[in-house]
Amino acid sequence: MTTLPKTPRSTTRRKGDRASHDAAAIHAVLDEALVVHVGFIQDGQPFVIPTNGWRVGEHLYFHFATGSRIAQMMGAACELCVTATLLDGLVLARSAMHHSMNFRSVMLFGQPEAVQDPDEKGRVLAALVEKVTPDRASRVRPADQKELAVTAVFRLPIAEGSLKARSGPPQDRPDDLTRPVSAGVVPLRLVAGDLIPA
Amino acid sequence: MTTLPKTPRSTTRRKGDRASHDAAAIHAVLDEALVVHVGFIQDGQPFVIPTNGWRVGEHLYFHFATGSRIAQMMGAACELCVTATLLDGLVLARSAMHHSMNFRSVMLFGQPEAVQDPDEKGRVLAALVEKVTPDRASRVRPADQKELAVTAVFRLPIAEGSLKARSGPPQDRPDDLTRPVSAGVVPLRLVAGDLIPA
Repeated sequence: MTTLPKTPRSTTRRKGDRASHDAAAIHAVLDEALVVHVGFIQDGQPFVIPTNGWRVGEHLYFHFATGSRIAQMMGAACELCVTATLLDGLVLARSAMHHSMNFRSVMLFGQPEAVQDPDEKGRVLAALVEKVTPDRASRVRPADQKELAVTAVFRLPIAEGSLKARSGPPQDRPDDLTRPVSAGVVPLRLVAGDLIPA
Repeated sequence: MTTLPKTPRSTTRRKGDRASHDAAAIHAVLDEALVVHVGFIQDGQPFVIPTNGWRVGEHLYFHFATGSRIAQMMGAACELCVTATLLDGLVLARSAMHHSMNFRSVMLFGQPEAVQDPDEKGRVLAALVEKVTPDRASRVRPADQKELAVTAVFRLPIAEGSLKARSGPPQDRPDDLTRPVSAGVVPLRLVAGDLIPA
């Protein structure tokens, strides 16, 4: 699938010029984001839970402890909204109103499916280790049967959703341009330091 | 309020030792997070929207374009779950299972209130500019009446919620400790670069 279909819930209502349904662009955000925020409803109450999300092909995977609230909900194939957000910069304008942030954010919609097969669970959990630290999965001890049994793995088809993004400089009003204050973009980057050995 | 009350929806079911209801610790996470994820329900569907959230006293503030989906929902005092997540490190263990992340995450629950008074709107929007870039708000042009009119501002009392956090090294099984693979914590930090002038 090269473009995700536009559906009512995945169609941006405002600033549609910042929206995209391009699958490759959506995949790129999901591949860069270490954490996603998973929204679901339980007893009429919304919950938003941060967790690892990682892509294998055209699915986004999640793992939770069996027995956790979210594992119970996902096991019942509840309706999800999963949002992955990357911050790219602070947009500093000459007016308070035109301050903004540069970002890329993906929202996915759909119902999760449980991954039951232990071999498949082991494979996709190794893919998470690889996403976070490439070339590591083959050097650590794989999950054993007991560990796999207490780990619930789910996947969401990357089939309905959209990307919204802002980039570039502030868009000041012409009559603000002469105001004597610095303006522009402060790039933001998530930086990994040196390993603190255990 | 020095401690938020424990309620059914704000009580962590798992790993309660990682949870806290301490107000100062919750405020610190909200003050550091540039973006929060706001969860709400519309027509039975969960939505999770990334946006700026900023604290003034014992309220967390948000702003949206009037007419946006989320402004309409917040104007109707819908039930929210607002989650702020800070990533502190990658936890690299000797086994796939014990990989983890160090993080601090706050979940707040409640119903938003609209801020109607233009003066108050102007003041809290200036507080957002100050949060992102200290000492800037007084140097930029404040929002004028027309700009305030198209900006919907809401606030959520910081009255119900909790903090969940992990810190420290991996917790490997004793029989994994001799495995010949590096292990420890890779610190993560959101780093601001130099201003790219507009």
